[in-house]
Amino acid sequence: MDFPSEFHRLAGRVERGIDRYLPPAATRPARLHEAMRYSLQAGGKRLRPVLVLATAGCFGAKAGAALPAAVAIECLHTYSLIHDDLPCMDNDDLRRGRPTAHRRFDEATALLAGDALLTHAFALLAENYAAQPVLANALARELAAAAGSHRLIGGQMADLLAEKKKATAAELEFIHLNKTAAMIETALVLGGLIGGAAAAAVATLRRAGRHLGLAFQIIDDVLDATGDSATLGKTAGKDAKADKATFIKLHGLAASRRLAQKHSEAAHAALGRLPGDPAFLLALAKSMAGRSR
Amino acid sequence: MDFPSEFHRLAGRVERGIDRYLPPAATRPARLHEAMRYSLQAGGKRLRPVLVLATAGCFGAKAGAALPAAVAIECLHTYSLIHDDLPCMDNDDLRRGRPTAHRRFDEATALLAGDALLTHAFALLAENYAAQPVLANALARELAAAAGSHRLIGGQMADLLAEKKKATAAELEFIHLNKTAAMIETALVLGGLIGGAAAAAVATLRRAGRHLGLAFQIIDDVLDATGDSATLGKTAGKDAKADKATFIKLHGLAASRRLAQKHSEAAHAALGRLPGDPAFLLALAKSMAGRSR
Repeated sequence: MDFPSEFHRLAGRVERGIDRYLPPAATRPARLHEAMRYSLQAGGKRLRPVLVLATAGCFGAKAGAALPAAVAIECLHTYSLIHDDLPCMDNDDLRRGRPTAHRRFDEATALLAGDALLTHAFALLAENYAAQPVLANALARELAAAAGSHRLIGGQMADLLAEKKKATAAELEFIHLNKTAAMIETALVLGGLIGGAAAAAVATLRRAGRHLGLAFQIIDDVLDATGDSATLGKTAGKDAKADKATFIKLHGLAASRRLAQKHSEAAHAALGRLPGDPAFLLALAKSMAGRSR
Repeated sequence: MDFPSEFHRLAGRVERGIDRYLPPAATRPARLHEAMRYSLQAGGKRLRPVLVLATAGCFGAKAGAALPAAVAIECLHTYSLIHDDLPCMDNDDLRRGRPTAHRRFDEATALLAGDALLTHAFALLAENYAAQPVLANALARELAAAAGSHRLIGGQMADLLAEKKKATAAELEFIHLNKTAAMIETALVLGGLIGGAAAAAVATLRRAGRHLGLAFQIIDDVLDATGDSATLGKTAGKDAKADKATFIKLHGLAASRRLAQKHSEAAHAALGRLPGDPAFLLALAKSMAGRSR
């Protein structure tokens, strides 16, 4: 298996899934549906939906069976970016190399497009897994918990509260475990549930996802501090500007890189114990600490 | 059955349900959970959750069985109010007689509290109906469709787009069918699904809810034009100020009152054909056109 080309292949399936599972841009009210598609079809790495497809595949599920859940998690991730970019939050102008939703449209449209994408994530699960209601409900429960006030949204709130003060290591861990790792963890779990993974394997996926998510976030902090906006497709250096709580601020650059490496290795070790064929997931864990975008 | 005291009794159950089914205010991050409770525990009529309980009861379900869904729909309604009140939308200072969420906290907290309430609505369904997965999925599917980009959010978007221009009767109907009637319709449908209503009865509930919702919205427009802020608990006269598309602007006051009466009667006629015991729902339909808050 060639990791980059396999990632590219899965990401291509995600792109086609997004086009298929989103309401057409012309549906009334067109401006809202245009904005939903504008943000979701702006590219991006597609890490979370690729993880859903790859994990379901590891347990023998067909990619088609996992595609609605993969699109759902990308809808959810994109809503969180749209709202995060709003003037009252990070007030960002650039995302995935293009104007953010509120810059391209307006604040109200961006707010509503985010709301609609969040809602659509749950609609996709309820509609497309209706023939397997136990699975449908397990997927919705997992996604709602990961996206809720104790995890994704709680992490964003804590992130805002930590600005302009010296966050402790424990506060920083709360932020990153919830703001970032929650959704990566859940991508693996959704894939496992769709693949019919046993409870022990789901627990392993959760642990691996947690390490993978932390590695991903630490590298995000590193890239924000060392990368340039053109490569990243988003404004670089904004953590320092907003005086955000980051691993870099707390531990410095070298120690942060080592920590990311440690979490990548822990994810790799956990994934190695999975049944099925985790080759792609193992390669992904290995590549995480070295990513440049 | 004494209608006002029965409404009061059901609304009391809803209040206790809200307290029970929301995360405690002290849960980390406390500011987020405080904001969620602040907006949800500000009172309000509780029309939608009362409709869920009453409709489930009409089909013989116990109120306890319908309570999580009732709280879920109120979470969803409250999120839509919080986001609707934000500066980039209606920019409102007063809601249910108190400062709006972004005035009491700040914009970012209000935004995230709304996001969290929307997410929590789906978490409540997935968690509390897990033992009946077919029902759980049907409830989530109904709620997601009613709250999504074609209905609730689509109606809000169309409402914004219709400001400061002369909306046609068709545009106004689109707005009101989706912005308001969708959630009232869905309250009846959720109650029916929990009560095990047959497909024909669910269709009747949907039709009745549509008329009830339109009557409710027309009276809302009438009260905005004729009521005072103290009685309404929200800023009166704001439709005219924002030059909103309303029934009053399009048809005038007297014709709007007649139209509300007509929709109330149509809801009443539909509800009269339901099996079970629709006495409370019939009384509610009768009272709708005459409400003063």
